[in-house]
Amino acid sequence: MEQFITELSIQTLGEGFTDITTEINNWLHDNDIHMGILVITSKHTSCSLIINENADPRVLDDLSSYMKAIVPEVGFQSINDNGEFKEYLHSEEGVDDMPAHIRTSLTSSSLSISIKESKLDLGIWQAIYLWEHRYSSNIRKINLHSICETKKTEISKGTENFHAVITKASASKLNKIVSGSGEDMKSSDGSISDTKMDLLIDRIHDITT
Amino acid sequence: MEQFITELSIQTLGEGFTDITTEINNWLHDNDIHMGILVITSKHTSCSLIINENADPRVLDDLSSYMKAIVPEVGFQSINDNGEFKEYLHSEEGVDDMPAHIRTSLTSSSLSISIKESKLDLGIWQAIYLWEHRYSSNIRKINLHSICETKKTEISKGTENFHAVITKASASKLNKIVSGSGEDMKSSDGSISDTKMDLLIDRIHDITT
Amino acid sequence: MEQFITELSIQTLGEGFTDITTEINNWLHDNDIHMGILVITSKHTSCSLIINENADPRVLDDLSSYMKAIVPEVGFQSINDNGEFKEYLHSEEGVDDMPAHIRTSLTSSSLSISIKESKLDLGIWQAIYLWEHRYSSNIRKINLHSICETKKTEISKGTENFHAVITKASASKLNKIVSGSGEDMKSSDGSISDTKMDLLIDRIHDITT
Repeated sequence: MEQFITELSIQTLGEGFTDITTEINNWLHDNDIHMGILVITSKHTSCSLIINENADPRVLDDLSSYMKAIVPEVGFQSINDNGEFKEYLHSEEGVDDMPAHIRTSLTSSSLSISIKESKLDLGIWQAIYLWEHRYSSNIRKINLHSICETKKTEISKGTENFHAVITKASASKLNKIVSGSGEDMKSSDGSISDTKMDLLIDRIHDITT
Repeated sequence: MEQFITELSIQTLGEGFTDITTEINNWLHDNDIHMGILVITSKHTSCSLIINENADPRVLDDLSSYMKAIVPEVGFQSINDNGEFKEYLHSEEGVDDMPAHIRTSLTSSSLSISIKESKLDLGIWQAIYLWEHRYSSNIRKINLHSICETKKTEISKGTENFHAVITKASASKLNKIVSGSGEDMKSSDGSISDTKMDLLIDRIHDITT
Repeated sequence: MEQFITELSIQTLGEGFTDITTEINNWLHDNDIHMGILVITSKHTSCSLIINENADPRVLDDLSSYMKAIVPEVGFQSINDNGEFKEYLHSEEGVDDMPAHIRTSLTSSSLSISIKESKLDLGIWQAIYLWEHRYSSNIRKINLHSICETKKTEISKGTENFHAVITKASASKLNKIVSGSGEDMKSSDGSISDTKMDLLIDRIHDITT
């Protein structure tokens, strides 16, 4: 098992969604990441990460309008009729800043996704979006962190299994050597067979590279 | 460390909750998963995953009613008094579809949970639910992906530690062999002791199987 | 790759936020956890985990007021004007209990975060909070579970790479030994060189400790 980490910089263009699925899959591909878990984290408190529909863009339009209705600018009232209007206390950074913090809290700052066959194992209609909640353009930092097996590991594991089969198949031969009765596998000077030593060296190479 | 992945198919019966805790624990048990992290992902954008109370079923009833109040059918107004009613733009798939996407975004599509002593390490009142947000019955695909140590690994690790202790205990003996002064552990022909070679072979078997 | 798990007990003082970032970083430090993934889970259904701003405390005040407005005590109406008031069915445990379950569902019970250079790899303005939703003081149990490389592992990996380089550099020497032509590396009795055996033992020590 190995781990890989990188920090993506995503340019946003004001409130709205940036599909980062392809960029993530490219990173998995570039690092030969074959199977594992991907943890995606946003390093900001005014944008979030969501998984949502990748087909009809009006889903995202509705989502955006809904969020503005439920987390209004300037302040809010209770959803019940009895509530007075409360202005946000934290207002110095603009009318969109405190709503952005709340919208981030109502969605996600971290996602964990399966990687299978060298790509994100999402449903057919799913995409991963960075959701910018501020009105301005921003450069957003996103961490991708995977604990995984790479293609390399897979191949080496294949080799291991191959060796394991060999080792099992030659168990009686090895037993004979270890018990000292494997005369035919000893060198002429009686030392332990080079073949066996070679097998050991190969084995250690396999499991450590 | 090993990894296991499977895809569960969960039959839902319209809007509501399906407790998947036992099914997950059974899968952990069947794969001898002892300690690790479990990532659970939903492969859909109109159902979600939540951890909530497993005791009083009215908690789930209230949660369901609340979600319908806060993410209404057809459209929505601002929680503040000044808002006009907005119909959902995305409406072709039924009155329950766009609300389902929003409800999914307000809850979770992925959860990460600790596995300890071969089961989910949840609090005593916690269960994991698949929350269907559509009105129709559906087959929902859920990924279970664990990076973990199995019971098998634990035992093998025990053996490793046992060997490590042996190895440390016989450090002076090994040193004698390596430095060529361990006459008593050499074979009569002066080659390196089979016992030592045997130990190496065992060791490699331990760490690679 | 190794794993570490612990259960923190956090004393809360009624509804509000407890910054647990430093406590988590201390735990990472105490266990020499260098690089990896941290899964944080709450074992309760009436408090949650969020990542939010660590600078202006009024952000948390606003967040708290907002949550009380959107998930009111006693019951709720639809955000649209047409809704009747619904009391919570689950009310025996106090006016703050059912709202606490809903507030937990709208935020998070589990977070996954990157660990880099022996600490949480958060953004500069981010902190991790336990958000108590009940009015009473409580002891809350939080799991920290990391799959990671420790400093120890890093050093040992460094050693591995060093050995790998040595092994590659001496490939022709090893080949000579294995093929029986490496007379200069054999002991006087013709047995396989102790140096080589020593290398093997060192190597196995490296990869198993």
